Amino acid sequence: MSSLRLDLAYSTVESAIGALEAPIRHAHDLLHHGSGVGHEFTGWLQLPETYDRAEFDRIADAAARIRASSDVLLVIGIGGSYLGARAAIDMLSHSFHNQLPRSRRPGCAIHFAGHNISSSYLSDLFDILEDKDVSVNVISKSGTTTEPAIAFRLIRQWMEKKYSPDEARRRIFATTDRAKGALKRLADEQGYETFVVPDDVGGRYSVLTAVGLLPIAAAGVDITALMAGARDAMAAYANPSLAANACYQYAAARNVLYGQGKQVELFVAYEPSLQHLAEWWKQLYGESEGKEGKGIFPASVLFSTDLHSMGQYIQDGLRMLMETVVRFDKPRRELAVPQAADDRDGLNFLAGKTIDFVNQKAFTGTLLAHVDGQVPNMVISVPEPNAYHLGQLFYFFEKACGVSGYLLGVNPFDQPGVEAYKRNMFALLGKPGFEAEKAALEARLPR
Amino acid sequence: MSSLRLDLAYSTVESAIGALEAPIRHAHDLLHHGSGVGHEFTGWLQLPETYDRAEFDRIADAAARIRASSDVLLVIGIGGSYLGARAAIDMLSHSFHNQLPRSRRPGCAIHFAGHNISSSYLSDLFDILEDKDVSVNVISKSGTTTEPAIAFRLIRQWMEKKYSPDEARRRIFATTDRAKGALKRLADEQGYETFVVPDDVGGRYSVLTAVGLLPIAAAGVDITALMAGARDAMAAYANPSLAANACYQYAAARNVLYGQGKQVELFVAYEPSLQHLAEWWKQLYGESEGKEGKGIFPASVLFSTDLHSMGQYIQDGLRMLMETVVRFDKPRRELAVPQAADDRDGLNFLAGKTIDFVNQKAFTGTLLAHVDGQVPNMVISVPEPNAYHLGQLFYFFEKACGVSGYLLGVNPFDQPGVEAYKRNMFALLGKPGFEAEKAALEARLPR
Repeated sequence: MSSLRLDLAYSTVESAIGALEAPIRHAHDLLHHGSGVGHEFTGWLQLPETYDRAEFDRIADAAARIRASSDVLLVIGIGGSYLGARAAIDMLSHSFHNQLPRSRRPGCAIHFAGHNISSSYLSDLFDILEDKDVSVNVISKSGTTTEPAIAFRLIRQWMEKKYSPDEARRRIFATTDRAKGALKRLADEQGYETFVVPDDVGGRYSVLTAVGLLPIAAAGVDITALMAGARDAMAAYANPSLAANACYQYAAARNVLYGQGKQVELFVAYEPSLQHLAEWWKQLYGESEGKEGKGIFPASVLFSTDLHSMGQYIQDGLRMLMETVVRFDKPRRELAVPQAADDRDGLNFLAGKTIDFVNQKAFTGTLLAHVDGQVPNMVISVPEPNAYHLGQLFYFFEKACGVSGYLLGVNPFDQPGVEAYKRNMFALLGKPGFEAEKAALEARLPR
Repeated sequence: MSSLRLDLAYSTVESAIGALEAPIRHAHDLLHHGSGVGHEFTGWLQLPETYDRAEFDRIADAAARIRASSDVLLVIGIGGSYLGARAAIDMLSHSFHNQLPRSRRPGCAIHFAGHNISSSYLSDLFDILEDKDVSVNVISKSGTTTEPAIAFRLIRQWMEKKYSPDEARRRIFATTDRAKGALKRLADEQGYETFVVPDDVGGRYSVLTAVGLLPIAAAGVDITALMAGARDAMAAYANPSLAANACYQYAAARNVLYGQGKQVELFVAYEPSLQHLAEWWKQLYGESEGKEGKGIFPASVLFSTDLHSMGQYIQDGLRMLMETVVRFDKPRRELAVPQAADDRDGLNFLAGKTIDFVNQKAFTGTLLAHVDGQVPNMVISVPEPNAYHLGQLFYFFEKACGVSGYLLGVNPFDQPGVEAYKRNMFALLGKPGFEAEKAALEARLPR
């Protein structure tokens, strides 16, 4: 099968990464021997080979039942229990998937909840669900994460009122811990069908588990092709040699650039459908590397849209930026620029060319302009936007991220910093067990 | 009327900004006397008082006709001809505005085009327009900007086929230069109703002109209230005294923080409906300040969603971040956390509280955690999300941006860096007049 291509010719460090041969080799060994920090969360490394085939078949079967019985699948999750599925569905579906009639799309409409604490959003969501047939996939390892827990409380009661309690049970699917936790216990009591969040795969690396696969399949995406792409990427990027491994070359290049003061990495795409792949990437890299006072700050732009907003800064602002472009050799759909009799807009020189031809020239023109502006560019070319190549991309970025974290000298598989605000929030909410902190925090707030 | 409140108590520089009294006063004078660089583009400063009332009435009238005749208004524009309208419509409308039946929303569905060069997006867009009644607002000062020009070419032909050429003309509204340019000429030939992009207001400052107002009004937002808010903000923020002017305090605080090495400013919101206000803000600040190798890099996060992705980095990564939070005293809609008999999720301690109560505690808990993590926070409190307060916010950020640019020593009203990629793109596309550059650029590309 064709595969991804990494081009470092515009990175300014193509010839410098060879110096990282030994550290890369070391990181490879840490990862593959399970001897690095955080090794207990590296189940994603072999997942495309070792995943539970019986569960995979159950996922496909559940997705088929959901597609047959429901207009909408409501996916309840946050962070790693949200972004992977959303990234895949947005990239691979019609731009207006949820607004098409059911007959013109391959799966359910997909809506999300439990990924914020907005009462307005949740109230609005119920408005559009009221005349629809709905299934629910609640995704939480513990079942007590605040956002999805609140949303699921409301939605469960809403489902039990809309349907009978029995019918609601058949329409609720829980993706959670294999054996323990609040959601697992509730699911067992209620008889929800359950799927597993593996113990050795952290949230941000979980898109190729049931966490991502059930919603992705319900949207009508081919999850068998997705896994095949990941499996081929796993084989391709197992090579310990830097010279032969594009995934390691990406990790090495961004590490060298970071050492040169490039502190911000922009994920760049030329298709609006990649907005949530960018968000998924930001969690993967930001949460894996942003610790101990270091790490590249991940941000994203969608071009050409954002060339008209962030383009000025990227060209001429502080010179601490690098860019990682994900581009496609060919688009999902094509359209030609028509001839116009009057040519008032002066575009007749493009008549008969495709719109994607213009998009590709915007890409190469921008690449050269930004490199001239001292913004190094790393370019990942993808043959086309389909499930197989997205499987490759997911694995490429996951493995490059693990290696990047080891190069940086951090544990790429923990996230100790996310506890600080949670403890504060629980205390301020008056959660039992946080009484001591409450008064101290409130004293720091006005009034 | 109630107004915005700026709180610098968590900025770490509240007592330091007094040192900028004189530079702020100087910037104020440059702006108000029209004696600074770029003064020819400061029409936005007095706009809430000086705007053309007759045109405003025509905008309201055209919007009413569009709402009456059309299911969809298709807005064609990019950058400053796109982001302001989208920011307002997203912030003030139902979360699923476009998916509600017409009877349950105050205006047309609003779709956008010409803000990218994606053939997939445009192809998909035509799918969902085919059985709808459509009006079009094409927004371009020149009429030759590549993205909107290509989209309008396609859409104009599609409209003329869907309706008669005469009916299409009545359904197309052009917002463009008062007298010259390709779009103005075409509009006059075709008889489109036209609205004006003023000469003295740059794209990123144009939301309160016809550029923003027509689409915003078509969506059913009260543009009279929007202008009233801007007018009250104009009066409130005309005070040259730093101590009495929250707008100048914001400019001063972020300038002091930048001087201390805080190179990245995160726009933070706790409502997903503010995503495009963040994008509008990023253009405003990035394009105004990002030049001559300097400027704060603007990025954005939506909490609590992104506390589960970017939260780790913000808490523990490189310490070059500051945050600007825009929060609301009360939400657009409210909902309570219900009681659950089983309490499996342990949330019964919140039963009866509102979801917004939880959101507010997430905000204060995060504020204190991030400040403890050495991320200074500036907090802008808005009484509620409505058109009046958004008018205030737009003006607040615009004026603070002009002053910020002068403090930084740059021209906040130009964007010289956006030409580089455009010249490259035109050359690579084979645009007449760029032949000389074409060969040189192609020699730098592979193959």
